Amino acid sequence: MARVAVVGIGLIGGSMAAALRLAGHEVRGFDSTPGRGAVAVSRGLVDQSAGTLDECVRDADTVILATPVAAILSLLSQVDALTSDDTLILDAGSVKADVVNAMAALSRPGRAIGGHPIAGTEASGPEAADAQLLAGRTFALCPSRRTTPGTAERAAALVRSMGALPIRLEADRHDAVVARTSHLPQVASTALALCLEHADLSLAGPGVRDMTRLARSDAGIWGDIVRLNRANIAEAMREFARRFDDIGRMVESGDTSALADAMQRAGRAVAPLAETVAV
Amino acid sequence: MARVAVVGIGLIGGSMAAALRLAGHEVRGFDSTPGRGAVAVSRGLVDQSAGTLDECVRDADTVILATPVAAILSLLSQVDALTSDDTLILDAGSVKADVVNAMAALSRPGRAIGGHPIAGTEASGPEAADAQLLAGRTFALCPSRRTTPGTAERAAALVRSMGALPIRLEADRHDAVVARTSHLPQVASTALALCLEHADLSLAGPGVRDMTRLARSDAGIWGDIVRLNRANIAEAMREFARRFDDIGRMVESGDTSALADAMQRAGRAVAPLAETVAV
Repeated sequence: MARVAVVGIGLIGGSMAAALRLAGHEVRGFDSTPGRGAVAVSRGLVDQSAGTLDECVRDADTVILATPVAAILSLLSQVDALTSDDTLILDAGSVKADVVNAMAALSRPGRAIGGHPIAGTEASGPEAADAQLLAGRTFALCPSRRTTPGTAERAAALVRSMGALPIRLEADRHDAVVARTSHLPQVASTALALCLEHADLSLAGPGVRDMTRLARSDAGIWGDIVRLNRANIAEAMREFARRFDDIGRMVESGDTSALADAMQRAGRAVAPLAETVAV
Repeated sequence: MARVAVVGIGLIGGSMAAALRLAGHEVRGFDSTPGRGAVAVSRGLVDQSAGTLDECVRDADTVILATPVAAILSLLSQVDALTSDDTLILDAGSVKADVVNAMAALSRPGRAIGGHPIAGTEASGPEAADAQLLAGRTFALCPSRRTTPGTAERAAALVRSMGALPIRLEADRHDAVVARTSHLPQVASTALALCLEHADLSLAGPGVRDMTRLARSDAGIWGDIVRLNRANIAEAMREFARRFDDIGRMVESGDTSALADAMQRAGRAVAPLAETVAV
């Protein structure tokens, strides 16, 4: 069992902390937002809340950075300086290329690896954290060009101890994939919600509620994501706009046979999601 | 308690039948698709399955037409001829203007009223029907220009007996609203799913699963919907395209402050959906 320091105790950091604690690890948390540490202790997400970054990460076997991505980038060198040679450094940011590049530039880069738990809800903060949030979910692990094989193995074991499923892939590949599977759905949900700004929601059912759930999520993390994954997101958005325009032409021309074909293809494309992602 | 005939025992018709039966009504069902009647009987959705339309609606106090909309339009005059002066005729189609116009043209139009239960899942058929599907859901009631007040009251009482919440509105208004709250989310979900056709879904989480649930729904009913609500859907799609393009420009230019504003506005626009629609 390890001494784990979790920096950033929001929805994701708090949920990772809680899952690690359940697995028997000793978990110390730190969050620069006043009050979050106390919530994390009172909800049992962490064993202790530290007053400073130094106090949190000192003596830790593993440091997990679960803040927004820009903060991860600035915390890395501080954590590098504060920890020992064999401290595993893992992050939980949603964009990976810039993070692993920063990891490769650390003084002792072999012990750092990028991570991204594919989980979340529209809620945020330690109040919404839940030890089960990551259960059965994919957890992407993206080594930098200097991550050692031993670090990758330790990170995978830690992820499994949270109940999540580690998959290893290149950071660039990760960022291109999540532009489509995560960032594009977010912007589509936001655009849809804006169309409903003056609409009569008394006729809104479960379909539109699900389609606008992401639009209700915390806007705070998206500035970093867009800044750091701009090219991939822009490309995915251009493809979406083409697909949407195609459907618009089918609607305007009343080509219901082309529309039925498109819907059937669309349904087949995402059929695996009905089966593989637990509710 | 009434003798209710349900014509079309799919997800919606079967769920309405089951809810009515639970409320103590005697329910007879008919579906032109072989096998559906037997499934409905074996699952207890209906008391009896009729072999013909005539046998189903004869002697009924209330006839509910729960087929795709084009079939509703052609069934109306047949049901008009087969039923008595005081038989309530209600439909459950997703588009209302053409239905209530056809109702106004019946020989005895006062007893007919348009209806639309705002409920559904991505599943279809009597196998997926569930007495709870409509519980707590809005049920739009759209009188034709010749529907009598007594008919509207009977329909509202019937809807309440299913556990749903009747709200009365003009058919044209209904069609304009659902273009935004139902049909636009459907096409956005379909366009998104098409963008994922060749994507690596191992990194897909609950967000994209929810965003593509509608894309996995039955394509069969959408030809009618698009044909009968084309102008409203096209207008809603043009607005979506403008909103999406606006966000695309914010992403490409890295204007994360405008993006954060848009996300916050979007979240506020759909905040009521988090509270009013039960899971």
